[in-house]
Amino acid sequence: MGKLTATSPIYDRELVDVGKVGYCSRQKRVRFALSYILAIVDKTMTQNVYDRSDFFEGYSKLSRSTEGLDGAAEWPSMRALLPNLHDLNIVDLGCGFGWFCRWAVEQGVASALGIDVSENMLARARNATSNPRIDYVQQDLERLDLPLASFDLAYSSLALHYVANLAGLLFTLRRSLRPGGYLVMSIEHPIYMAPTRADWLFDERGRRTWPVDSYLVEGPRTTDWLVQGVIKQHRTIGTTLNHLIRCGFVVAHVEEWGPTDEQIATHPDWEEARDRPMFLLIAAQR
Amino acid sequence: MGKLTATSPIYDRELVDVGKVGYCSRQKRVRFALSYILAIVDKTMTQNVYDRSDFFEGYSKLSRSTEGLDGAAEWPSMRALLPNLHDLNIVDLGCGFGWFCRWAVEQGVASALGIDVSENMLARARNATSNPRIDYVQQDLERLDLPLASFDLAYSSLALHYVANLAGLLFTLRRSLRPGGYLVMSIEHPIYMAPTRADWLFDERGRRTWPVDSYLVEGPRTTDWLVQGVIKQHRTIGTTLNHLIRCGFVVAHVEEWGPTDEQIATHPDWEEARDRPMFLLIAAQR
Repeated sequence: MGKLTATSPIYDRELVDVGKVGYCSRQKRVRFALSYILAIVDKTMTQNVYDRSDFFEGYSKLSRSTEGLDGAAEWPSMRALLPNLHDLNIVDLGCGFGWFCRWAVEQGVASALGIDVSENMLARARNATSNPRIDYVQQDLERLDLPLASFDLAYSSLALHYVANLAGLLFTLRRSLRPGGYLVMSIEHPIYMAPTRADWLFDERGRRTWPVDSYLVEGPRTTDWLVQGVIKQHRTIGTTLNHLIRCGFVVAHVEEWGPTDEQIATHPDWEEARDRPMFLLIAAQR
Repeated sequence: MGKLTATSPIYDRELVDVGKVGYCSRQKRVRFALSYILAIVDKTMTQNVYDRSDFFEGYSKLSRSTEGLDGAAEWPSMRALLPNLHDLNIVDLGCGFGWFCRWAVEQGVASALGIDVSENMLARARNATSNPRIDYVQQDLERLDLPLASFDLAYSSLALHYVANLAGLLFTLRRSLRPGGYLVMSIEHPIYMAPTRADWLFDERGRRTWPVDSYLVEGPRTTDWLVQGVIKQHRTIGTTLNHLIRCGFVVAHVEEWGPTDEQIATHPDWEEARDRPMFLLIAAQR
């Protein structure tokens, strides 16, 4: 067979080095670069609800805040997506209290950079370690700035669904990874995030259902979580994956997280995730 | 940076030719090959509801049956995922009345093989053309058999959600594609398929919601569509994508289909898909 050419914009006219950069032609990459650079210089500022004292107080009491990684239901599944961390340079986007960076250092990473917009969170993170391999830095993910080809793993737990300019962030992120570098991320699942009224319905027999509407209507969702008016960015799974692919990531694994039988035995309330997933986990590679 | 090694089963110990075979090591590929071969020789037989006269009569009246490709709401989006078809050898899995093969010949394909389990559908397909480039053949997709490295494009419209042994089918399919070959497929969206009672709920103000439950409980779903007791196979988006990735496909595009404003103007009833998508479109490449 001769060289395949494509008419569709998803393949573009000229496939360049498919294995390394996905389905982007040079022309397309330049186009994306321009649009993402424009997006990056956009003045979008994150809500930074984590620096509100009432939110911070509530967040500090969650099991994932007091117990760290082991307090997060989806952590075993996230951990299973990680490469061998030995000697890697890693970055954690939305590091919060910094648990992942400290765990990564225990696993032998060469360096761990934790980034968060919230000074509240960063202060707590810095207080928890004096390890010179860890650095906690304040940055707004809407305008992420990272050195080129410097990291082997980018990690992000439940942060990127706050980011409006996901395309810009992923473009920056891919360039900051070395060839072959990994991205392991979790966000809130769009089924969880989509509804106008995101709460269980119960029918006359007590059967629980999750009332999905507006699933394909992407954009901000305002929710009351710990405090009123927390703004999240709803995107379909397809949109998130297509952003990754267009930025040159190869999708390695997509997991709509649910609890194991063992987890349900110790946390019966987690079973509701089987009816409606709450987390979406993605692994990709540059 | 040295060669990255991974501890996770999704990357496996030794990355082999990532660009071409995804994230599979040789060891992993052998393991998958064995499991898929076992799955292929399994005696699972498809329901073949299309050969029931009552179902066939109902199906024959759908707009996608009488008008062909243009009668299907998602066709413009599927078409946008196709490569340039000139001189390609293509296969259509679940070809039904054979519309796609006939359209593909008009676009200049070298050959079009349509496969369906239903003799009813195939008889109608064969009656509609005498073009020697088209062949319509009866096969059960649960036990698909295709020649090696023979096709440039595999196409499948709303058929693979009937297939229980998707892993076996994709394994066969990938081997039947030439390097660089394309897969463009649609299935029913898992949000549409998941619920125990798959029907809209209306609240006191007439607001429509789709009652999702059992989303993470994968397996057969029995539904009444045209006739009672049609069996479909529910899988999450993640599961379908991971099957593709493990079989060595590179995911190129994932689309949770919704109507355009123009489509809603002419088909107002299609707007409900914005609340709850009905179709999932995927493009991938060997």
